Amino acid sequence: MATIDLKTLLGMAIKTQRASLGISQEELAHRAGLHRTYVSDLERGVRNPSVDSIEKLARALELSVSKLFERASE
Amino acid sequence: MATIDLKTLLGMAIKTQRASLGISQEELAHRAGLHRTYVSDLERGVRNPSVDSIEKLARALELSVSKLFERASE
Repeated sequence: MATIDLKTLLGMAIKTQRASLGISQEELAHRAGLHRTYVSDLERGVRNPSVDSIEKLARALELSVSKLFERASE
Repeated sequence: MATIDLKTLLGMAIKTQRASLGISQEELAHRAGLHRTYVSDLERGVRNPSVDSIEKLARALELSVSKLFERASE
């Protein structure tokens, strides 16, 4: 069985939480102080974000960083 | 009250877990496939590691990424 990359799982967790907050990628990017295309890339798991970026995103998603990774590993 | 940077807290959590495993920075670096000076920098919170690097470190520390961040936020 192929294992799914953690960056991909993190992207899925970001997308799911963004949807549950009912906000667009653009709005999430605005709240996190990141670029919209960067948020789009993160949701698709094609970027390798740093702790600083993940912290900004988690805050904008109203989750702790540990909770975000916990969801990414479920 | 000044808030402590997440990178600093993460570094402390890495150092604490490394100590509890009884291994050196060099051994941790070897297990994680990272450079020893990079591990030293991470423990001091002066680097902004990516998801890929954190995943390698967490595995070498025998912790999940979410658990490592949970310890960093305690």
